[in-house]
Amino acid sequence: MVGIKDVAALAGVSTATVSRALNGNGQVSERARLKVLEAAKHLDFVPSFSASSLASGRNRNVGVVVPSVNRWYFSQIVDSVAASLLDAGYDLTLYNLSEGAEHRDRVLSEFLLRQRCDGVISVSLQLSKTELGQLLAVGKPIVGIGGPLPGADTISVNEFSIAQLATEHLVGLGHRRIAYIGGPEDAAKDFNISEGRRRGYEVAMEQAGIKIVPSWLAYAPFTIAGGYASAKQMLGYPRNRPTAVFCASDEMAIGTIVAARELGLRVPDALSVIGIDGHDLGEVFGLTTIAQFPELQGAHAVERMLELLVDDDDADARTNHTAHTEMIIRSSTSAPTDQLHG
Amino acid sequence: MVGIKDVAALAGVSTATVSRALNGNGQVSERARLKVLEAAKHLDFVPSFSASSLASGRNRNVGVVVPSVNRWYFSQIVDSVAASLLDAGYDLTLYNLSEGAEHRDRVLSEFLLRQRCDGVISVSLQLSKTELGQLLAVGKPIVGIGGPLPGADTISVNEFSIAQLATEHLVGLGHRRIAYIGGPEDAAKDFNISEGRRRGYEVAMEQAGIKIVPSWLAYAPFTIAGGYASAKQMLGYPRNRPTAVFCASDEMAIGTIVAARELGLRVPDALSVIGIDGHDLGEVFGLTTIAQFPELQGAHAVERMLELLVDDDDADARTNHTAHTEMIIRSSTSAPTDQLHG
Repeated sequence: MVGIKDVAALAGVSTATVSRALNGNGQVSERARLKVLEAAKHLDFVPSFSASSLASGRNRNVGVVVPSVNRWYFSQIVDSVAASLLDAGYDLTLYNLSEGAEHRDRVLSEFLLRQRCDGVISVSLQLSKTELGQLLAVGKPIVGIGGPLPGADTISVNEFSIAQLATEHLVGLGHRRIAYIGGPEDAAKDFNISEGRRRGYEVAMEQAGIKIVPSWLAYAPFTIAGGYASAKQMLGYPRNRPTAVFCASDEMAIGTIVAARELGLRVPDALSVIGIDGHDLGEVFGLTTIAQFPELQGAHAVERMLELLVDDDDADARTNHTAHTEMIIRSSTSAPTDQLHG
Repeated sequence: MVGIKDVAALAGVSTATVSRALNGNGQVSERARLKVLEAAKHLDFVPSFSASSLASGRNRNVGVVVPSVNRWYFSQIVDSVAASLLDAGYDLTLYNLSEGAEHRDRVLSEFLLRQRCDGVISVSLQLSKTELGQLLAVGKPIVGIGGPLPGADTISVNEFSIAQLATEHLVGLGHRRIAYIGGPEDAAKDFNISEGRRRGYEVAMEQAGIKIVPSWLAYAPFTIAGGYASAKQMLGYPRNRPTAVFCASDEMAIGTIVAARELGLRVPDALSVIGIDGHDLGEVFGLTTIAQFPELQGAHAVERMLELLVDDDDADARTNHTAHTEMIIRSSTSAPTDQLHG
């Protein structure tokens, strides 16, 4: 069997260089890397990953736990984390909890314990105390995106404060009948963003002295279809119809715009709509939004993970980083019609 | 250090049962599995994955190579493959090529060679001869979704035939001015679906005796924003305006509907639109489509992979499975107005 020494001999480099070149581990010149790859190819040498990781105690692999990859925010995070890990020479093992409780339990109680990962990046997971215990028991660095995740480093936006800001934008334009379409109550388990965003809306309304009518509150899945169905119900109801809607995600906001158009309500003349996310489609729909930047959040999470992998002694100094957001005003929000024409 | 024997002793089972229970490998009763997990937890036992895979020669890990996860079709495939692999006790290592040529090259020339995967599932990748050679050189079973992938098992829809069928649907309704919005020419490298779908359209038009006007052919990214921009250009042009558009993906078709509405063209009265995919949003937009079922394609790919992992001697008997598709007629297509009212 061809061994690493044979490759080193043919490439004219040390075995350590061969190891570094093939593992993407540590510094190696581009020229040496190419020589090693050529020699390895010539000799049909395939490095045994398991053997090399036993020796180093490192897998060069990070586990990423996500609710699913079929929502815009999650897919952006995964694309970004994958690219950053690849640049750093790490593999990404994807743990996708979309199939419900049993998968969730198996990932947290079994899969992560296999110790295949050097660390875990957890995306938008609200964990129970038991689950958090399971995750910490893996004994590896953890970075959470969309925290809080007690005991782990986290990167998240301030849900309360951006929701308050979005509502204030509508209040500032002169709206009083402002509705909120948020995440389903029972999804709070997975996505801990629903509560913070609803509270931000409620506080901004209270501060503006506006009493919220029950029909202005709706809950829907964080999707275009979810926002569409919810907005159809809300906007078709003839009493107390809102003149503005704040949606907890851009996908919901886009669904709301589509529903409004079908009901003959021009946006923004008859209805202002604001979302949260900074979705690619925002431009197509002229959507005002508070953009977060999942690609930056993903890159930041990987950066922090790599720091922790080098030195994780700093367990008491967990950082909670507030991710950057930015309000983008487009054409879906304006003053209400009576003020525009009054 | 706590070893597997200690866990076996405490759980009152054999070490083989402990191994099976912790690796998700082979048959083990639910009762035994729970006893083992409890004992392992009690003893703070963490199985060394590398050691166990050295012993078995298996990683229980499948690599999944995708262009990105932020398009509907890819995200559905990844969600489905992840769920099926988890059920089978396998990890999923995600290789995401979204960041362009350099990543693509590193994944194919280095990462897969690390031998961390027992097999590779490749999604919608059109590989050059060199790249295919690199992939086959990994020496592991390969299953391709959206083939062809010479030398590998593949699962794909018949691109030509579904595109022909979609075009025939519009011809059959009485349309003559039928446009096609397809994938960008240079994306053919990644997504080998563009050419087949365009040819299906061309052949159906030829068979109907219709000469294609150049302004009826447009190319766009396979996204809502891509379809929107392309359709705005095409439908705003005042001459030879089509009465029907066939789009190479549902996302493009949805963008086309949004563009048509903004231009005051009612769908389907002034414009019929048909897509391909079976996107979740199809119902919201009343979109007629040819549905493929990525969740079934993903599950099927994993099933085939598990068969190959048990017995890969059958290298000469590569199967090419044509995935199921289904035409779903909704409200976005109808006879052209002159026939409806004439």
